[in-house]
Amino acid sequence: MIRIAIDCMGGDFGLPVTVPSALDFASRFADVHLLLVGQPDAVSAALAADARSRVLADRVEVVPATEVVAMDDPVEVALRRKKDSSMRVAAQAVKDGRADACVSAGNTGAWMAITRYVLKTLDGIDRPAIATSIPNQLAGATIMLDLGANVDCSAEHLLQFGIMGAALAQGRDASARPSVGLLNIGEEIIKGNDVVKHAAVLLRDSPLNFYGNVEGNDIFKGTVDVVVCDGFVGNAVLKAMEGIAKMLGSMIREEFQRNAYSMMSGMIAKPVLNRFKDRMDHRHYNGAALLGLRGVVIKSHGSADSYAFGFALQRARDAVAKGVLERTASYIAQMTQQGGESLETPT
Amino acid sequence: MIRIAIDCMGGDFGLPVTVPSALDFASRFADVHLLLVGQPDAVSAALAADARSRVLADRVEVVPATEVVAMDDPVEVALRRKKDSSMRVAAQAVKDGRADACVSAGNTGAWMAITRYVLKTLDGIDRPAIATSIPNQLAGATIMLDLGANVDCSAEHLLQFGIMGAALAQGRDASARPSVGLLNIGEEIIKGNDVVKHAAVLLRDSPLNFYGNVEGNDIFKGTVDVVVCDGFVGNAVLKAMEGIAKMLGSMIREEFQRNAYSMMSGMIAKPVLNRFKDRMDHRHYNGAALLGLRGVVIKSHGSADSYAFGFALQRARDAVAKGVLERTASYIAQMTQQGGESLETPT
Repeated sequence: MIRIAIDCMGGDFGLPVTVPSALDFASRFADVHLLLVGQPDAVSAALAADARSRVLADRVEVVPATEVVAMDDPVEVALRRKKDSSMRVAAQAVKDGRADACVSAGNTGAWMAITRYVLKTLDGIDRPAIATSIPNQLAGATIMLDLGANVDCSAEHLLQFGIMGAALAQGRDASARPSVGLLNIGEEIIKGNDVVKHAAVLLRDSPLNFYGNVEGNDIFKGTVDVVVCDGFVGNAVLKAMEGIAKMLGSMIREEFQRNAYSMMSGMIAKPVLNRFKDRMDHRHYNGAALLGLRGVVIKSHGSADSYAFGFALQRARDAVAKGVLERTASYIAQMTQQGGESLETPT
Repeated sequence: MIRIAIDCMGGDFGLPVTVPSALDFASRFADVHLLLVGQPDAVSAALAADARSRVLADRVEVVPATEVVAMDDPVEVALRRKKDSSMRVAAQAVKDGRADACVSAGNTGAWMAITRYVLKTLDGIDRPAIATSIPNQLAGATIMLDLGANVDCSAEHLLQFGIMGAALAQGRDASARPSVGLLNIGEEIIKGNDVVKHAAVLLRDSPLNFYGNVEGNDIFKGTVDVVVCDGFVGNAVLKAMEGIAKMLGSMIREEFQRNAYSMMSGMIAKPVLNRFKDRMDHRHYNGAALLGLRGVVIKSHGSADSYAFGFALQRARDAVAKGVLERTASYIAQMTQQGGESLETPT
């Protein structure tokens, strides 16, 4: 049984999204046990309103939490004043061994701070990082990290991101070790900065399957399984990606609405365009992993609907099933044995 | 008359692209005078092969250069050993006042080094930056810089990029001062690093029309006229953009080829899809500006065909016509008067 603690109060919509999505998820996966964390009366009412809750009663339980972290709560408030928040209780369930993973669609900063405070980082990992799957041309997905948890990174941090990313990734060939690329800039121009150059040396000497430098377009080509970069670059690229997808979508729509002929051909091409739209649907990629903590932690997009939230729950289940934490620990153990060197940034 | 010196030997194709493209350009714009720089026999032969050269003879002249910088020449070789290269002679034509602008499709590193060496930076500018126009949802273009000339930037450099970008940009409303945004990361997460935070203060205190922080998606939304970032981030975003556009293009193609119905609807939708393809044609955005030098310098993509190279030539003409250098100098003069402070990075 994979046990997942869900912060049912978080996100732009809260219970009306999280509870139906959780029930749908439990219906689809017989190996999950869900802890629905939140204000007990409200969660119970949401459950009672959904007929599936009766069938799933033995795999879905309510875990009470009296407080809620608001989307605009400062991190300090979330962490220090709301000690019985649904976020905190969900993280604590993982800490206490009652759950294997926790998921929230709430305030990113608060969720990062709370899970880090409650769960702590794994041995050998200085800082948690945010990772997500990005669709690539090989009809697979590239894992990219960090996406914004760390704006200033040392070479050692980038190495740790490589370890965490590889632990999360499944190689294209299941038996192969996932390949890791280091995001760098065009070869024509002065290559990289000192941190990136040093990180390349560390990655090359590590037990990871290090591919070498990659560029921004390699993320979408699927050149490697994992792309590593600092959080500032990763966040900028991720947001740019969302912006481009939106722009292209609206350009296509515009062109198909330009005149009577375009509209007619758009109607005919509708099944094709819908398939394309479906492939590009960002909801399929919902659920970023906060890696490097002593527990599987997933962050859903705040604006996720029930369908999208279900993908965040699936990522939690996958990460537990794949043994991401154990894999991370094993990479770190291999490195410590191999070099005897500390992974951590010299202080 | 706007006089443009063209390195006819550069790029993946050299003369077969540059000479016909130059003639086409001169036919379309009656206010340009072109200096075709290269091995004189070869350039003259390419000209003689094109009937238009006779008509345009008084506005197209050959400027001899005995050497050629190869696409894979190290910067040192290009700069120190090939002192009569077509790149060097084109840059020198600007330096000597024989041309207002110079354009090359050759080796980026060599072109940057040579133009910087020959032309030097403008007063108040520490380092040149690479800027390009990126299509946005408003059917306009966003200017973004730096795209890879500088991997480590100080806050003062980012301010200078803002000045150079604003000088290159035309505000959406021709009478308005172009708006400048500073690329930063998502608001949910710890905002920016120290350099970016400091740059925001400098930009706010400058005479520029500073919008504030923007995120990656704002580039494509057209939130501002100019987006400023360091060269590492800019290059990663630019390459990612190319990668996404390619991926989406191939996905659309795949979907329209999936079965007989898709193929039929693709045939019907062809005029619409072609218009979309045309709007997304990266050749329309060819021609990056190397800003901050004492002369207008344009870099064409090495793989540009004659059509694409023509857009790089247009950018050179536009930059001269708009008075980019004068505008840059005027911003810097305003700043020096205003604050009395030096723009340059304290050393």
